[in-house]
Amino acid sequence: MLAVTILGNNSALSMHDRHQTSQVVTTDDQLFLVDCGESTQLQMQRYKIKKSKINHIFISHLHGDHYFGLPGLLNSYSLTNRIEALHLHATPALKEVIDLQMKVSESTFSFELIFHPIVEAGILLDLPGITVSCFAVTHRIPCWGFLFKEKEKPRRINVEKAALYGVYQDHYKALKEGKDILNIEGKMIKNELITLDGAEPLSYAFCADTRYDESIIPYIMNANLIYHEATYLDDQMEKAVHRFHSTSSQAANIAYKSGAKKLLLGHFSSKYENLQLFETEARSVFPNSEVSKEGVSYIVK
Amino acid sequence: MLAVTILGNNSALSMHDRHQTSQVVTTDDQLFLVDCGESTQLQMQRYKIKKSKINHIFISHLHGDHYFGLPGLLNSYSLTNRIEALHLHATPALKEVIDLQMKVSESTFSFELIFHPIVEAGILLDLPGITVSCFAVTHRIPCWGFLFKEKEKPRRINVEKAALYGVYQDHYKALKEGKDILNIEGKMIKNELITLDGAEPLSYAFCADTRYDESIIPYIMNANLIYHEATYLDDQMEKAVHRFHSTSSQAANIAYKSGAKKLLLGHFSSKYENLQLFETEARSVFPNSEVSKEGVSYIVK
Repeated sequence: MLAVTILGNNSALSMHDRHQTSQVVTTDDQLFLVDCGESTQLQMQRYKIKKSKINHIFISHLHGDHYFGLPGLLNSYSLTNRIEALHLHATPALKEVIDLQMKVSESTFSFELIFHPIVEAGILLDLPGITVSCFAVTHRIPCWGFLFKEKEKPRRINVEKAALYGVYQDHYKALKEGKDILNIEGKMIKNELITLDGAEPLSYAFCADTRYDESIIPYIMNANLIYHEATYLDDQMEKAVHRFHSTSSQAANIAYKSGAKKLLLGHFSSKYENLQLFETEARSVFPNSEVSKEGVSYIVK
Repeated sequence: MLAVTILGNNSALSMHDRHQTSQVVTTDDQLFLVDCGESTQLQMQRYKIKKSKINHIFISHLHGDHYFGLPGLLNSYSLTNRIEALHLHATPALKEVIDLQMKVSESTFSFELIFHPIVEAGILLDLPGITVSCFAVTHRIPCWGFLFKEKEKPRRINVEKAALYGVYQDHYKALKEGKDILNIEGKMIKNELITLDGAEPLSYAFCADTRYDESIIPYIMNANLIYHEATYLDDQMEKAVHRFHSTSSQAANIAYKSGAKKLLLGHFSSKYENLQLFETEARSVFPNSEVSKEGVSYIVK
């Protein structure tokens, strides 16, 4: 299972009951936090996110609307006596900020904060079921997108066929790993006769704050779901370029050209109360586009 | 008019729909912000605080629950193109934090941020109608309380008496200033014959985060209203001492011994959902005690 829950999808200011950027990526057994704008903790309470299950936090860049909620979140972990180490992945300067804030408050955390500076594109995290990698996007300051990609999944056993060929449960582990098997009569059975391909590994790409930039496409190719910023509607394309942001149809173009299955739009400028046109504009380029909604968990499929 | 609107009255964590410390002191013509915990901006939206009317911000100390909302608030002022200078009064290290955050975001403010380092007790601000002064409290790190004190108010004219003595409107300004006046017949009229004392200057003391400490009493003597932290109930007095906080009856003792007219309790530990006992305990020492409520504006009288 791979899903993303949107905690904040607004740019810069919190307005229209939309909040600053933050989202939680969920797998079967853990949560990953991506960006942490101010009030992310309140959004976590509101949407019942179990924050103790988060062990890795990824921060795209150091504009305040993407990380001003982080110091408070770290404080809260400490105040509630968190013990597990917490991994923080971000541009190196974030460590300076946190270190200074801890120094002026004469405090220490109850847990080990392990800082992983992001300095180039590549794999940040390699867990049994998933990898998280980063890719540079084009923003006013250094900024990173993140790709969550499931690993190859075990082959699925066709139980009836396996029985037919005289292969039973004690061999299932090896079968799932793709091995050929000696059956009950000592005859070698080809794996593919009694198994099916594993489920397709899913992937989710968070494209952060970025100007339209096709150079990210190789990194996010064929993602099942991408979240791409659309700060402005298309009539503000000049402003978008100037401010290192994107428009709705630019986001849709990235989805289309990268072969995404689905596009979630986000990071809307506060000047837009109604977001319907974002969807309309994006769908004219890439039909499976959707305006992200806070509190909604989008299952990647 | 002097009033205080509570935006946050919880300690450390935001819980039970109570938020981190922040409050707005209001006079006839302006607003002052005292402390700025995370999500203060959202609380301002919720309680319709006109944040453009704030020109002075006072931060008691650099524990995150008292200032983590400040960087975002400053950002918002900038994003909405604030032009007026903004004055920030706090311990010197806050400037380092803000400077670093601005540096890593490669940003500048749209307005001038004038930083006033607090280094000793005394007057921070002297405006036509009010002074704001600070006093040291006893906390784990340097921490300041703030006293808002109206200046002497103009004498009030007894219009009937003035007419009786042949003194008319063109002399009112001088009368209000306490001057004796030549009447219509050229006779000197004693001011006190036709005026009354001005309204009593009001004062409000914000006592910040503090261990029980009678040394603050001289600074807040006879305040009309004091806001004193009561992080714990009395059965946790040992913990309060250890953590440099106060209990409900300790807060009430300060109110009683300083001759306050009224006590507002705040900064409650998140472990208390129901706050009724805080009021009960405080009232046994100082009857005019009240648990502060978020969103409520308390008129100082």
